[in-house]
Amino acid sequence: MGMARRTKFTPPRRRRNSGRRPGGQSSRGAVLDAARTCFARDGYEATTIRAVAANAGVDPSLVMQFYGSKDGLFHAVLEQQSTLAEKMLASVLGPRAGLGERVARAYLQLWEDPVTGNTLRSLIRASIGSQRASSLLRTYHTEMLDRSRIPEERRLGLMLAASQLLGIAVARYLVGVPLLVAAPLEELVQHLAPAIDRCLSTTE
Amino acid sequence: MGMARRTKFTPPRRRRNSGRRPGGQSSRGAVLDAARTCFARDGYEATTIRAVAANAGVDPSLVMQFYGSKDGLFHAVLEQQSTLAEKMLASVLGPRAGLGERVARAYLQLWEDPVTGNTLRSLIRASIGSQRASSLLRTYHTEMLDRSRIPEERRLGLMLAASQLLGIAVARYLVGVPLLVAAPLEELVQHLAPAIDRCLSTTE
Repeated sequence: MGMARRTKFTPPRRRRNSGRRPGGQSSRGAVLDAARTCFARDGYEATTIRAVAANAGVDPSLVMQFYGSKDGLFHAVLEQQSTLAEKMLASVLGPRAGLGERVARAYLQLWEDPVTGNTLRSLIRASIGSQRASSLLRTYHTEMLDRSRIPEERRLGLMLAASQLLGIAVARYLVGVPLLVAAPLEELVQHLAPAIDRCLSTTE
Repeated sequence: MGMARRTKFTPPRRRRNSGRRPGGQSSRGAVLDAARTCFARDGYEATTIRAVAANAGVDPSLVMQFYGSKDGLFHAVLEQQSTLAEKMLASVLGPRAGLGERVARAYLQLWEDPVTGNTLRSLIRASIGSQRASSLLRTYHTEMLDRSRIPEERRLGLMLAASQLLGIAVARYLVGVPLLVAAPLEELVQHLAPAIDRCLSTTE
């Protein structure tokens, strides 16, 4: 949402003749956008630095200069989504009353939203579909949890709650299980809330 | 577990000189084993009929003759795992007392077991990692549910329970979230049981 950040990739029309763009903030953004597109479309394994560079209209060496490697690029894409994770953590840190319901609703709404939903679908599909990408997701999650203000004793419960929500999201938005796709969002929230409440209230 | 079914692929040593094997039950089994290996290692998108044939030591045309297409092959691999799904359904159809605990334990034990766990890891990774494979998994699940004796009114609850369990499995066995990997199996079962119980008791 920042002003300097491009949220959608558009081909660089004005530089039609140069073919390549110089380094700088907007190239960085274009490379990230291209990376998100490639990871979403081709998965982690099949995505190459070359393809990302071509999609962004820059030289592959510039991608390497910016992000070091494909892993670095994937990490940057995950990092770019940290606002989503922060929204979720904020909903956890709110008042105890109605906690499970609030967290379940906030999470499913991120998946329902056309923009964040699309991002989550691509990232989660790519992260689970490749062993390497799974390990990058794990590292990123651990870092994020360490940076958060969540006390140690609440973390297992948080992970359990997050995993159960992830399962519903995978089944509804990635696999598309008909009964779950057909269920209204609020019905799912009501079904999930007690379990999320229990997990988040655990302090041992 | 059938006698005619090979559960593990071993290279055809005695036919070292023939290069290719004739059609028949054992070639079918070898092709399925090879398919499982390829889908697990390369994911759905990157797996080719040619690679599966090479791995099984047969001609690609034989793979096509047996299974028709890559989709057909993936469906056959899913079908081959139907004993796992039947075990789960059996645990659901048992007595009401201790239902959630029994189902959660049965499910996680399938993932813990070296053989079935390996199968589940590959299949779920491949199924979620590709849009096409996700849709094949969905079709297969729907067919299986239709063949089952589960009454209509219990199916949404069953799907919710299954999704929550899937989420835990993805987080623990595919992503490898440290806190969930470190938790003893029984602790996870105890945490999950009440939620599974609630979902499976829902009759609306």
